[in-house]
Amino acid sequence: MISKIRAGVYGGSGYAGLDLVEILSRHPQVDLAFATSNTYAGDEAPGTGLRYVPADAALLEGVDVILLALPHRTSAKTAKIGIEAGVKVVDLSADLRIDTPEAYERSYDSPHPHPELLPTPYGLPEINREKIVGADVVATPGCYPTTTLLGIYPLLATGALCADAPVIVDAKSGVTGAGRKPSLTTHFAEVFGNLIPYKTGRAHRHIGEMEQEAHKISERIGPIIFCPHLLPVDRGLMSSIYVTLNESLESDQLQDLYAEMYGGEALVDVLPLGEQATLRHAVKTNRCVISITPVLPRHAHITSVTDNLRKGAASQAVQNMNLMFGLDETTGLI
Amino acid sequence: MISKIRAGVYGGSGYAGLDLVEILSRHPQVDLAFATSNTYAGDEAPGTGLRYVPADAALLEGVDVILLALPHRTSAKTAKIGIEAGVKVVDLSADLRIDTPEAYERSYDSPHPHPELLPTPYGLPEINREKIVGADVVATPGCYPTTTLLGIYPLLATGALCADAPVIVDAKSGVTGAGRKPSLTTHFAEVFGNLIPYKTGRAHRHIGEMEQEAHKISERIGPIIFCPHLLPVDRGLMSSIYVTLNESLESDQLQDLYAEMYGGEALVDVLPLGEQATLRHAVKTNRCVISITPVLPRHAHITSVTDNLRKGAASQAVQNMNLMFGLDETTGLI
Amino acid sequence: MISKIRAGVYGGSGYAGLDLVEILSRHPQVDLAFATSNTYAGDEAPGTGLRYVPADAALLEGVDVILLALPHRTSAKTAKIGIEAGVKVVDLSADLRIDTPEAYERSYDSPHPHPELLPTPYGLPEINREKIVGADVVATPGCYPTTTLLGIYPLLATGALCADAPVIVDAKSGVTGAGRKPSLTTHFAEVFGNLIPYKTGRAHRHIGEMEQEAHKISERIGPIIFCPHLLPVDRGLMSSIYVTLNESLESDQLQDLYAEMYGGEALVDVLPLGEQATLRHAVKTNRCVISITPVLPRHAHITSVTDNLRKGAASQAVQNMNLMFGLDETTGLI
Amino acid sequence: MISKIRAGVYGGSGYAGLDLVEILSRHPQVDLAFATSNTYAGDEAPGTGLRYVPADAALLEGVDVILLALPHRTSAKTAKIGIEAGVKVVDLSADLRIDTPEAYERSYDSPHPHPELLPTPYGLPEINREKIVGADVVATPGCYPTTTLLGIYPLLATGALCADAPVIVDAKSGVTGAGRKPSLTTHFAEVFGNLIPYKTGRAHRHIGEMEQEAHKISERIGPIIFCPHLLPVDRGLMSSIYVTLNESLESDQLQDLYAEMYGGEALVDVLPLGEQATLRHAVKTNRCVISITPVLPRHAHITSVTDNLRKGAASQAVQNMNLMFGLDETTGLI
Repeated sequence: MISKIRAGVYGGSGYAGLDLVEILSRHPQVDLAFATSNTYAGDEAPGTGLRYVPADAALLEGVDVILLALPHRTSAKTAKIGIEAGVKVVDLSADLRIDTPEAYERSYDSPHPHPELLPTPYGLPEINREKIVGADVVATPGCYPTTTLLGIYPLLATGALCADAPVIVDAKSGVTGAGRKPSLTTHFAEVFGNLIPYKTGRAHRHIGEMEQEAHKISERIGPIIFCPHLLPVDRGLMSSIYVTLNESLESDQLQDLYAEMYGGEALVDVLPLGEQATLRHAVKTNRCVISITPVLPRHAHITSVTDNLRKGAASQAVQNMNLMFGLDETTGLI
Repeated sequence: MISKIRAGVYGGSGYAGLDLVEILSRHPQVDLAFATSNTYAGDEAPGTGLRYVPADAALLEGVDVILLALPHRTSAKTAKIGIEAGVKVVDLSADLRIDTPEAYERSYDSPHPHPELLPTPYGLPEINREKIVGADVVATPGCYPTTTLLGIYPLLATGALCADAPVIVDAKSGVTGAGRKPSLTTHFAEVFGNLIPYKTGRAHRHIGEMEQEAHKISERIGPIIFCPHLLPVDRGLMSSIYVTLNESLESDQLQDLYAEMYGGEALVDVLPLGEQATLRHAVKTNRCVISITPVLPRHAHITSVTDNLRKGAASQAVQNMNLMFGLDETTGLI
Repeated sequence: MISKIRAGVYGGSGYAGLDLVEILSRHPQVDLAFATSNTYAGDEAPGTGLRYVPADAALLEGVDVILLALPHRTSAKTAKIGIEAGVKVVDLSADLRIDTPEAYERSYDSPHPHPELLPTPYGLPEINREKIVGADVVATPGCYPTTTLLGIYPLLATGALCADAPVIVDAKSGVTGAGRKPSLTTHFAEVFGNLIPYKTGRAHRHIGEMEQEAHKISERIGPIIFCPHLLPVDRGLMSSIYVTLNESLESDQLQDLYAEMYGGEALVDVLPLGEQATLRHAVKTNRCVISITPVLPRHAHITSVTDNLRKGAASQAVQNMNLMFGLDETTGLI
Repeated sequence: MISKIRAGVYGGSGYAGLDLVEILSRHPQVDLAFATSNTYAGDEAPGTGLRYVPADAALLEGVDVILLALPHRTSAKTAKIGIEAGVKVVDLSADLRIDTPEAYERSYDSPHPHPELLPTPYGLPEINREKIVGADVVATPGCYPTTTLLGIYPLLATGALCADAPVIVDAKSGVTGAGRKPSLTTHFAEVFGNLIPYKTGRAHRHIGEMEQEAHKISERIGPIIFCPHLLPVDRGLMSSIYVTLNESLESDQLQDLYAEMYGGEALVDVLPLGEQATLRHAVKTNRCVISITPVLPRHAHITSVTDNLRKGAASQAVQNMNLMFGLDETTGLI
């Protein structure tokens, strides 16, 4: 019998961190070594019997892997510490997702704290599994890129997109996507009964990450027009994707294409034709759920949903961790 | 001094009917003669001192105008009765919005009850004002067409849309848009925390009405791809519109175009560049609020919001009624 | 190794039934034999691979136990069929909770369909465990009585209540408590942003059941004043209980009393003094969570929360089933 | 014709301040002179055409009255400035509601900034009208005391309460009651789907104010047990009040008593027997709505609801202002 993986969570009291702690504390192959929280140090990490420790009090000795649910910049620095201590690292921040320091600086307006860490394998297992298996460091993608890229991956892989037309992504996210730090944006009375577009067009930081990964799979893709909205719910993310196909495929062939490409994936569900993916299909699950509507021969509407804190963050990080340690990728997740 | 308009409301206990009753009972030039409700006959129409009467007990004698917030088919029959009694009619149903019986039958799957009533002036005053002034019968458009058409009207009027690309409308509506009749679709526990796409692509009945009116203004428009979603709020409707422009205009010129075209409209607000229209801008108001985001030179993202029960139904009906009687169009609305 | 319990669920598509199906399909000692639904017959019972069958097509051969999430009256009739077929029965309806046909008729306004089934052990394990172990038929209490009785049980057991003062229960329930059948009461637009008292005072049917069980434990209790409210959330139930103590105990002794009486209970949590039980402590869990606030020496405020579909219905039914079959009572529940 | 009242609003960008600005800007006898906001100085006060100014830039010259929606302590200091400038003052904070500096210090844990201002008339017009008419300074009560005191006033005025039993108030408030300053308490994801008791028993600061005013009307009242809850809605406040009557009155006489005492009040509605007051009866209105349920001969359940930002704050402040200037008290409010 194999001994359990000893895992530490940094940033364990944010929303993604709380889900990480919950998933890892029930994971049959993991011992939770610590969870850090500078704000809640001394309080119990819910359901674990452990108390949060400040980040700089976490001991890496005897730890096999650390999972980082930290703000960007802090995350890269902590990853560096982990790497130097010989510990595997699953980063949930944006710091290791961008391949070059230059592109990072363009999206995040400051120099990369540790450019020598780039590039890192991009931890979207359904697309990039072979680079994750056995890796020492993996960058887990954000909720918007995960949901969107899974929604168009079969089209990218088959080169079916019209290169001259944009891919339009009208996205809607629950409020936990904005983090746990209080702000007027996340004040209950501002969000209740409301729907708020923000960073529309091409202003959102995740655009760079989406296009970087999409282009690795296919150059035949137009620009991504990405318009996120803040939805008055706590969890869940929907990417409503409008694509234009080239001459290689008609929209009524997409259902079969998606069913085949995702047929072997435990954590991606393709709904039967005519059934629409709703937020509730994914909330509190570890899966991405996709529905396809052929609209016109060259035009399709794809709905891709995840729980932004699960397949969009914590459970995908654990899926990556499983692959890095040679476990079945769904251990602790289904 | 002019005597007041005597107005009767049919269907006064549905959600649009309730807003009609509220607006008319405060309207300085209107006396509310009756409000019908077969379900709530005998109860007080809130805030009016009147009791609901069954539809067939409503007396048209001495009444100047009736406003119909009825199911389709019933509405046309009631309109016919009003017309024969010499009373003006503002219809809020779909029955009089479609120009030909053939097109009506295509969208509504049954023959038109009174084809001799078609066509009727389409009551979107900002687009069609001259046909409404003084008219005896007007068809008030639905919430989705109102919000969407106002969102693209300046592009239609100037012929700025690329005719080869679809207009993509990702729409989100509060639950009152589904009516007051109980169903599993509108059950609180099914909607709460959820987001539900429905009748996506080109399946929604309002598509025909939208394209009919759009084509009257400009033939230079591609197909409308329209994907509505049920939003977990009671009121409010957002159309997120993604347009491709032709060579006549670049997206950074739209702000000025919209500001100019709507500058004189009291019930349409164009937000300053950089500010996004949110649901709350419109809820419980009688206005349509629009924001424009230039994304790429040929691509723009337009957000158009209304209260589905006000500018998307009841207040627009009153706006039409005002025009039909030669009143200032905003009487009782601002 | 023991063979698994073969269990059938009647009423498997209502809200309590759906939770029953979910819990039983993951229960390590249970094989789900069937789930009935007259409305959804032919559809998949979510996550089970089974399809719903109509209630009268369910086969009891080879089945060990049936769990009934049915409307009252139908439930007693189905219980009777199960008993005659030699199958154990866990009833979630009110039919078997009342000890006498006369009391049943007082609360439910119609004669009991099978008075010979009364009385049946009342399935609140923390209070009544010894009567449930090994029983063939058990009546699982409703959500309001469960939450309320657990909130005052230590006071009943020690005779600490002032017999001259009422026990005041201001209760708040999520909308699933009203069932899945659509009605205006559960229409999203009626509930959203609202809070609605109903059947206040002593009008609610569950009053009889609460007082019957309370009096079995202690005659020293005044009348229960019970005022439920419909809360704009999907799940969760809070009983805010205001008690007057007699001379045997002061309110600052309650914390220790509750901690001791519930110390051995896996499915009841008593929060530390100063921490308040919130709805979220219980939602989507199988536990009842209680907090105690001493207010004045003779007056205390007790907050007791459950998930109305779990400890208030489905998980408590499974807890009873476990006891009836001699399993550890928390199997499949923690 | 009388010239209009020139009014200034301090704290015009908080939730109560925003409602004040909205009400005053539509008030037929008021000119809004300024609205202050240190946070939003320079932005438009919604719907007014005015821009917020910092509090210390507000000019009192030519101003007739200031309304203070400020944090406590700051409010008393601003009231002092107004008084010295010869301007009338309507304070919405707690600073002037408590009659003595000693009692203030007990509830607010710090010495009163201007003890010479105490006592000030308590601005609950339905109870205290004669002290408000023509006054120069008035303290507008908070939302909990307003709603609760109006709910029991007829019982206080007739001495009908049992002096030996507590008055139990289970209160529920929308999130705007917690103010607009962001905090974890008001974070959308913490409140959504939740219900949170806080400061229960006798810990809430408003207890002192409630008991002070109740005792002025009647000494025959037991202690108030007050348990507020944070409700997942933006606006609205419900006090569920459980009273024990003395021998002077039976509970089925309350309906007539309340109907008679409030019959002449434009801003208090007593619902017919059998109809329950819901949050929606009061939200976005300027009224308090009350329903009475006789439970047992000596016990009644009273539900009193207001909009916490209107009759619980801004509209009551305007009602006071009207009385101070000799206007009809409902001017601008109905």
